[in-house]
Amino acid sequence: MKGNVIVGQSGGPTAAINSSLAGVFRTAIDRGAPKVYGMRHGIEGLLNEDYVDLSDYIRTELDVELLKRTPAAYLGSCRFKLPEIHEDIACYEKIFSILDKLDIECFIYIGGNDSMDTIKKLSDYAILNGHPCKFLGVPKTIDNDLALTDHTPGYGSAAKYIGTSVKEIIQDSKALIYKKGLVSIVEIMGRNAGWLTGAAALSKGEDCDGPDLIYLPELPFDIDDFIARVKKILSKKPYAVVAVSEGIRLDDGRYVCELTDGIDFVDAFGHKQLTGTANYLARRLAQEIGCKTRTIELSSLQRAASHMASRVDILEAAQVGGAAVKAADEGDTGEMVIITRVSDDPYGSTTELRNVHKVSNVEKVVPREWINKDGTYVTDEFVAYVKPLIQGDVSPIMVDGIPRYLLHNPKKKK
Amino acid sequence: MKGNVIVGQSGGPTAAINSSLAGVFRTAIDRGAPKVYGMRHGIEGLLNEDYVDLSDYIRTELDVELLKRTPAAYLGSCRFKLPEIHEDIACYEKIFSILDKLDIECFIYIGGNDSMDTIKKLSDYAILNGHPCKFLGVPKTIDNDLALTDHTPGYGSAAKYIGTSVKEIIQDSKALIYKKGLVSIVEIMGRNAGWLTGAAALSKGEDCDGPDLIYLPELPFDIDDFIARVKKILSKKPYAVVAVSEGIRLDDGRYVCELTDGIDFVDAFGHKQLTGTANYLARRLAQEIGCKTRTIELSSLQRAASHMASRVDILEAAQVGGAAVKAADEGDTGEMVIITRVSDDPYGSTTELRNVHKVSNVEKVVPREWINKDGTYVTDEFVAYVKPLIQGDVSPIMVDGIPRYLLHNPKKKK
Repeated sequence: MKGNVIVGQSGGPTAAINSSLAGVFRTAIDRGAPKVYGMRHGIEGLLNEDYVDLSDYIRTELDVELLKRTPAAYLGSCRFKLPEIHEDIACYEKIFSILDKLDIECFIYIGGNDSMDTIKKLSDYAILNGHPCKFLGVPKTIDNDLALTDHTPGYGSAAKYIGTSVKEIIQDSKALIYKKGLVSIVEIMGRNAGWLTGAAALSKGEDCDGPDLIYLPELPFDIDDFIARVKKILSKKPYAVVAVSEGIRLDDGRYVCELTDGIDFVDAFGHKQLTGTANYLARRLAQEIGCKTRTIELSSLQRAASHMASRVDILEAAQVGGAAVKAADEGDTGEMVIITRVSDDPYGSTTELRNVHKVSNVEKVVPREWINKDGTYVTDEFVAYVKPLIQGDVSPIMVDGIPRYLLHNPKKKK
Repeated sequence: MKGNVIVGQSGGPTAAINSSLAGVFRTAIDRGAPKVYGMRHGIEGLLNEDYVDLSDYIRTELDVELLKRTPAAYLGSCRFKLPEIHEDIACYEKIFSILDKLDIECFIYIGGNDSMDTIKKLSDYAILNGHPCKFLGVPKTIDNDLALTDHTPGYGSAAKYIGTSVKEIIQDSKALIYKKGLVSIVEIMGRNAGWLTGAAALSKGEDCDGPDLIYLPELPFDIDDFIARVKKILSKKPYAVVAVSEGIRLDDGRYVCELTDGIDFVDAFGHKQLTGTANYLARRLAQEIGCKTRTIELSSLQRAASHMASRVDILEAAQVGGAAVKAADEGDTGEMVIITRVSDDPYGSTTELRNVHKVSNVEKVVPREWINKDGTYVTDEFVAYVKPLIQGDVSPIMVDGIPRYLLHNPKKKK
């Protein structure tokens, strides 16, 4: 490569997003890019000319390894939606003048649906204006809801953490006996797609029964039916473990977490916060069955747990980052790198490119046939799909008993 | 040993409680005990003659290693308070007749304060009645609130998990920028003792600033002062991370979590549930500062996370289990094994015995001088105390991407 590379991270953090950054950096250096810049806080930072020369911060092979094991966006993230080109040409002119100033040949954006929208607009603008810069998207989201790709980097590690944590919760639930039974409800991320919640089934094996019930947001949730099922489970054994998506909704479309009275679920920005689903259900169970209940929200732990990262996930994340640089160097633009599954067992995958116009803003949900008839569990097909993605470990680099990271959020040098 | 050994587990589960069980089992076999029985669900199970021959379930060295890595009470736990001897002699006669039937020479109970109360009563009864059985206590609690011992098995692993998870939460908090700032509040177990909450400070190092504020239950909590401090932090940087104990209380003694309106915090058994502290504080901050907030309750994850166990903790847990059997074999009774710290750096510890009459029902809290003047952080002395206890890892035995356990809660063979 003769020109420079710039890379940014966007949207919600994951345990693998920095492995993609490491892949971009390594491949760009390997292919002879003179400079690899990092936007701080994505395109929003770039607009303020807030960027760093990554070679100042990633100096050794150990730094690269630390970066792969550092959770959440190393460069800082943003949630910034670019205006349409015709709405605000000045914004685009500004971005491209900065890119020209930095002699950028290749612009890589690591993110989810919104980030692919950014790649689409920037590559469209470049083509319309005959600008030579190449724009490539690198998928990232724990939600696994991006279209076209078999799965997204970040999902495998989150799934591994969820399977492990739910297994630990089940063991904990079995230890104590309560007279009227104990119900543990685990609330898992996923507004519209149940990929993460379904991963609770990974806890099931010859040493563990797995959760008793799993509810995904893809199907309407029936509270009375739920209570009846829990009652039945408690008539046979002293505990039940239930995994629910934060986004489960009633038949009429209301979120279960909206049913709570006395709690204001709208935050300071007017965003409806999807939290409280497990608490609401726990209270209903306590009222109607009289059982002991407890709720466990996996919260941001599930997207930041790099100490439980999947090796397949971390390697693939680096691979898609590298593939994006290679594609740009070979003249591609306006494409997202996708992962294609070659085989399940032994698992094999490869990367390909897909036009971002086909990708953006389509949410991939769990297929109906991967959820059981009653809507209370995922099928073996679902588990067979996820299993390869959680294989292998990435040992944290432990210093003094705690995982070490590459120092976060580098500041621009004066 | 000529007679048999029986062992039980009691109280809240931990990541290390089964390592103590493994230590008891191994040492009893090594010293020639013909049988090692396990009470299912502690003394409550024993009263129903619910016990197993552990050799039927722990058959290989690999089983012992799996047991050490299995969280929560393998044998099942209970919360059963023995009556005073003079209140219900029949209960004691029943227990001792079962012990005689099984030819028990040594009775080991792994647990916290309540369990040591059980050891005290049973050993008193044996002495009063000239019964030869020896009764020994093995300390266990993530809360680290047992008197006399330097620390309790289970605490180190929980502390390691808390330090790691808080570090991941901090990295996650730094990634996104909110206009009015983001405050993450981590709620950590500990009703009266702040040992676990203080472990949040372990996240601090050259690659991480650690949480901004840490509030232990040892000191009264001032909400206005808290809000003012958060406001000040957000005036300097875009995020704040706060660690709070579930048990923090106002000057007037009310729990902070009791201040929530609209939520019924009394469970079906009439127990006040100490949950909601972080949620209450988050809502107050959102109201008064307008910042984005989020809450993370570490819940039962912190006591069951054997995938993040500390090697020092797991080894010491096995060691105290073994020391209890040895002591009984040498004629001691009515004693609890304690851990004595020999040196900090390099860390060294040894086991000793203490009369259970001195132990039971005294809660050890964090000394005032290990909390800073303002009551908003732990001191370097606190960190120096905890650091040695989180050192080293116990690699989970991974099968198909998920940690494997020894099959839980064995059923009595027919």
